[in-house]
Amino acid sequence: MKAAVVGGTGYGAVELIRIIQRHPYIELVSVISKSHHGDQVEEVFPHLSRIVSYTMDAYDIHKMEKEADVVFFAAPSGVSKELIPECIEAGLKCVDLSGDFRLQGEELNCLWYNQTPPPEALAEQAVYGLTELYWEAIQESTIVANPGCYPTAALLGLIPVIKNGWGGTSSIVIDGKSGISGAGRGMSLNTHYSEANENVKAYKVGKHQHIPEIEQFLSREHGMEVTVSFTTHLVPMTRGLMCTISLPLEEQVNTKEVIDYYRTFYSRHPFVRIMEKEVFPSTKGVYGSNFCDIGLHADERTGRLTIVSAIDNLGKGAAGQAIQNVNVMNGWDERTGLMHVPVYP
Amino acid sequence: MKAAVVGGTGYGAVELIRIIQRHPYIELVSVISKSHHGDQVEEVFPHLSRIVSYTMDAYDIHKMEKEADVVFFAAPSGVSKELIPECIEAGLKCVDLSGDFRLQGEELNCLWYNQTPPPEALAEQAVYGLTELYWEAIQESTIVANPGCYPTAALLGLIPVIKNGWGGTSSIVIDGKSGISGAGRGMSLNTHYSEANENVKAYKVGKHQHIPEIEQFLSREHGMEVTVSFTTHLVPMTRGLMCTISLPLEEQVNTKEVIDYYRTFYSRHPFVRIMEKEVFPSTKGVYGSNFCDIGLHADERTGRLTIVSAIDNLGKGAAGQAIQNVNVMNGWDERTGLMHVPVYP
Amino acid sequence: MKAAVVGGTGYGAVELIRIIQRHPYIELVSVISKSHHGDQVEEVFPHLSRIVSYTMDAYDIHKMEKEADVVFFAAPSGVSKELIPECIEAGLKCVDLSGDFRLQGEELNCLWYNQTPPPEALAEQAVYGLTELYWEAIQESTIVANPGCYPTAALLGLIPVIKNGWGGTSSIVIDGKSGISGAGRGMSLNTHYSEANENVKAYKVGKHQHIPEIEQFLSREHGMEVTVSFTTHLVPMTRGLMCTISLPLEEQVNTKEVIDYYRTFYSRHPFVRIMEKEVFPSTKGVYGSNFCDIGLHADERTGRLTIVSAIDNLGKGAAGQAIQNVNVMNGWDERTGLMHVPVYP
Amino acid sequence: MKAAVVGGTGYGAVELIRIIQRHPYIELVSVISKSHHGDQVEEVFPHLSRIVSYTMDAYDIHKMEKEADVVFFAAPSGVSKELIPECIEAGLKCVDLSGDFRLQGEELNCLWYNQTPPPEALAEQAVYGLTELYWEAIQESTIVANPGCYPTAALLGLIPVIKNGWGGTSSIVIDGKSGISGAGRGMSLNTHYSEANENVKAYKVGKHQHIPEIEQFLSREHGMEVTVSFTTHLVPMTRGLMCTISLPLEEQVNTKEVIDYYRTFYSRHPFVRIMEKEVFPSTKGVYGSNFCDIGLHADERTGRLTIVSAIDNLGKGAAGQAIQNVNVMNGWDERTGLMHVPVYP
Repeated sequence: MKAAVVGGTGYGAVELIRIIQRHPYIELVSVISKSHHGDQVEEVFPHLSRIVSYTMDAYDIHKMEKEADVVFFAAPSGVSKELIPECIEAGLKCVDLSGDFRLQGEELNCLWYNQTPPPEALAEQAVYGLTELYWEAIQESTIVANPGCYPTAALLGLIPVIKNGWGGTSSIVIDGKSGISGAGRGMSLNTHYSEANENVKAYKVGKHQHIPEIEQFLSREHGMEVTVSFTTHLVPMTRGLMCTISLPLEEQVNTKEVIDYYRTFYSRHPFVRIMEKEVFPSTKGVYGSNFCDIGLHADERTGRLTIVSAIDNLGKGAAGQAIQNVNVMNGWDERTGLMHVPVYP
Repeated sequence: MKAAVVGGTGYGAVELIRIIQRHPYIELVSVISKSHHGDQVEEVFPHLSRIVSYTMDAYDIHKMEKEADVVFFAAPSGVSKELIPECIEAGLKCVDLSGDFRLQGEELNCLWYNQTPPPEALAEQAVYGLTELYWEAIQESTIVANPGCYPTAALLGLIPVIKNGWGGTSSIVIDGKSGISGAGRGMSLNTHYSEANENVKAYKVGKHQHIPEIEQFLSREHGMEVTVSFTTHLVPMTRGLMCTISLPLEEQVNTKEVIDYYRTFYSRHPFVRIMEKEVFPSTKGVYGSNFCDIGLHADERTGRLTIVSAIDNLGKGAAGQAIQNVNVMNGWDERTGLMHVPVYP
Repeated sequence: MKAAVVGGTGYGAVELIRIIQRHPYIELVSVISKSHHGDQVEEVFPHLSRIVSYTMDAYDIHKMEKEADVVFFAAPSGVSKELIPECIEAGLKCVDLSGDFRLQGEELNCLWYNQTPPPEALAEQAVYGLTELYWEAIQESTIVANPGCYPTAALLGLIPVIKNGWGGTSSIVIDGKSGISGAGRGMSLNTHYSEANENVKAYKVGKHQHIPEIEQFLSREHGMEVTVSFTTHLVPMTRGLMCTISLPLEEQVNTKEVIDYYRTFYSRHPFVRIMEKEVFPSTKGVYGSNFCDIGLHADERTGRLTIVSAIDNLGKGAAGQAIQNVNVMNGWDERTGLMHVPVYP
Repeated sequence: MKAAVVGGTGYGAVELIRIIQRHPYIELVSVISKSHHGDQVEEVFPHLSRIVSYTMDAYDIHKMEKEADVVFFAAPSGVSKELIPECIEAGLKCVDLSGDFRLQGEELNCLWYNQTPPPEALAEQAVYGLTELYWEAIQESTIVANPGCYPTAALLGLIPVIKNGWGGTSSIVIDGKSGISGAGRGMSLNTHYSEANENVKAYKVGKHQHIPEIEQFLSREHGMEVTVSFTTHLVPMTRGLMCTISLPLEEQVNTKEVIDYYRTFYSRHPFVRIMEKEVFPSTKGVYGSNFCDIGLHADERTGRLTIVSAIDNLGKGAAGQAIQNVNVMNGWDERTGLMHVPVYP
């Protein structure tokens, strides 16, 4: 299978290239960059020299049509909704790592992304690529809206107890903590080393565009409208993302029972690892990998459940899951090219 | 005023020494260390050489009685409850940075600290040293139970809306994030550099000894029993602590009204800084200082209030607040020796 | 004494403001910023709110003439050489933290800074502000060229053995390691968090503008032209700078003798601390302070001397030394407002 | 090929396990741990769960004889010299990541490691595993003394110009900077997070056991005794190691010529990457990989050559090179299982 990557100098693209290089069935045929086309990849990314070698391309639908089977969009929001229509027409499968195809309807897209949604027909064609939940639809799909990093961790943690009714929806609180690569390779004072180091900072409080994404899919799984209180923080590390979730328990279940239920729920899904009782995940445990580690604690004192969910924001939170989705789209084992040991320490 | 510090090689003690060196009215007369008595301070802490110079002492109540007016206990839990009785008898004022005098009653102490409480008469004499809330009682006190780092940030953030009834108590969720100096100078795998760096880790979930401390004082201010869901995390930085708090709003108030109320509430308290609307604190903004920065967001969508509260865990979360309390105990301006600019960047 | 700061949003300026706030004899009357004049300082630097409060000014020589006695230039290279002439004419004392007045002659300035030097008369008036070496000239000066961060650490480490002839000049090798705040508050990919974190990077190899500064003052002290091999590195921390120096020993002296000599050499200088034998400095030992810690090792096997010199790049390497120079210019104790404990841990 | 790993809870072992899991021809049959035998690997290293699964073994030569073909020793110094004799007798190939077999002769071993060397016959059998230099001998070997992390970077950087005589040996200065995982998983105050973070620290000045290792192999390549001035530093990051080297040039060659020569020298060695002119390596560029990146600068002003050499201390500096050596011992392509993209960012 031949793949092209659009948005080739961002961290999502670089992680895609790293994974594809180890993937037995995917070949990288074109890396497209608006700002660097014509440049040799080694000039921009010296860490790739003597491993992969190519000249960055300008976007050219005709060239892609001829050479590629699948296109990954790792560009900022607003790009893929303009380009995917012609890619689909050209018979290319599309995996979009941006937010363009995730939210349904004009209202949500305008409110949270300040842009109009893609054409309705295409939007309906797009499948939300949370692999463990929607793999059946992903198998048949041509457009995958790859989930955001926070929603991946939050939804994998929450959906099991939302689906079976153990979790109440009246006061779901999610605390998100992300490494700074989540903010991308574009420069800003927030991501300037001397400002971000030795610093924890809350940002976009009440305004993060991942709020409606989490709510939309919780609501779908629950059957009724669900809202969440979700606060995001930058923590001083490059990679890694954790969601710490608190919600009321509607049933009197203990930690052991919750753990057993989660293990059953995810028994066919190798990338979700449910921790032992009293063991809680750390982001280092998933560094550079496609795993999502989940720890659980049913608190008798408060009648609430605490869920701690950790991923690599560039792995399961972006490029890893994109490849997992391509594996599913092609009927390959979903572990193909992804079942590697996290980088520890 | 002459001061002794017990537990002289821990981070709390070292920060006390740093602050006392700048304090116009406090003189350090003895630093007591079980493991290092007889050693020159410069051997253990080269950063202090040519600024302060002394030999670390063994604990000796008679020497302290003669030389000191106030004793700071910066030793692990279990030490101060053994030593404070004779210090009080010797006429010394005591500021305890450990947890020994914070929780009331045998049950809580046994459950959360796995130790019996201090003698009841003494325990009743102790005043909880959250300066902004209890400064009147602190003025008259001889034993101050200096608050824990997490409770300082959580209570300063929560108490205003718990006191006036705007905040509901049915689902208070607190997410705590601490720099690693909060775990002290004692070695463990959790604080080993290669394990802690590039890592966010949830720990002591449902079991942290600061849970009952927060609940005890929230309940006192509210009038009824209050429970909280409190989860703690280690983040890869040396100093700094943030509590992100979510609770239901019982009244329809907006962010502006909440901010105005907090500003009034803390108007006489120079170390609590209420941020502007849509500005949220970062731990770097309080680095090395005694400030507590609080950001607020009343969310119309969810009907909940988000409170973000940041301190330096060794400053307002430990040594800074201890000095602030001594200022209050002596009738000095509470800013004395503390009103310094945070270290930025 | 009334002080103005030009370049008010850079890290040098912010550190000056932090030190001046604790200084008993200096009052800050104006902070001048090209990009932010008209803004309240708290908007740009929330960490300063409720401590200092002012509106950032535009540069206005008439206002400065009336209000200030001394001007600190903490702007990029090229600014102070344009402004200092009229400041001197207006009777203001000038302390320049940029490189404009450090190198002598047109050739060096063109080659290493790519700019013409200041007018010769003014250039000759400027005194190089390495306080421990040139305090006598600084006392009489009106323009102080405050040293660069690397030269401060390198020269304080090297000059004693260059002056007494123990150190040979045939193969002086200096390895510089700087925290990332040394690169300033301006954004670049090199200082983007995700690029700089978990990374050591050599930069400007053979081209750093601090090379001629080190050589010029070594040559002056030695009497003959001296060249050095100096390589600079960014290390993943905010503050701190270390120079590790190797040079041949011309005399058979042992470590103890070298240490004794350095202690005598700096005996009247409180900010240079010579470590005990087999103890070597760490940048954390000087964090946030004006100290320079020096460790020494005379190696019998190789006949070479190793000198390890550590400073805070924003302290002794910039703002701290600037204040130390103003203390000397005014005949105050050079420790005034500076003798504070480093922030540890 | 079946492999056992001795010293199974250290960072070297964990990195071996990570690489072996991706290696097509090596199967891990036993992980031996003195402190954890009997434990499930997932309990000690949760990041491995659902990828590899085994119970840690006690050391048992009979079991190893039956099950394994090659043994990796990733234990502290002093262990392998006791165990390798019987392993060799049992027909096992041995790759030793400790220092036991690196230095020749009793004197060096006693002086720098404070221990007697292994039996002379065995010591002579051991081949120094700097793959790019000694691959021919490694092919035939049964014991490989895998190089230390600093010597790997230093020797790969230095040997080309020592061999061809361009580099003079009168004043070779090497400045080493290592991430903290180089100090292992054992706890110490030096590797305690709050002490090591935001800190650069020189250590073991003039005493590091890698000094004689570097000198021994430089001397072998040069033909005459060579000494080096080598100073080591801990820098605040987990992985990565850089050696910055300065030595006199005996020939008038420019940077371009030096680069061309290095490219030719290493043309058959895929893991040494010579950077373009004016480009210098960063440790991030080799993170998690087996590459050694080398940047070069011939300085006309000083007549000296600067060599900057970067590796991952756990990759090419330990486990990566160990696997590379096994590849060579078995006649496989040396890239087998190792040619992966560094983890960036």
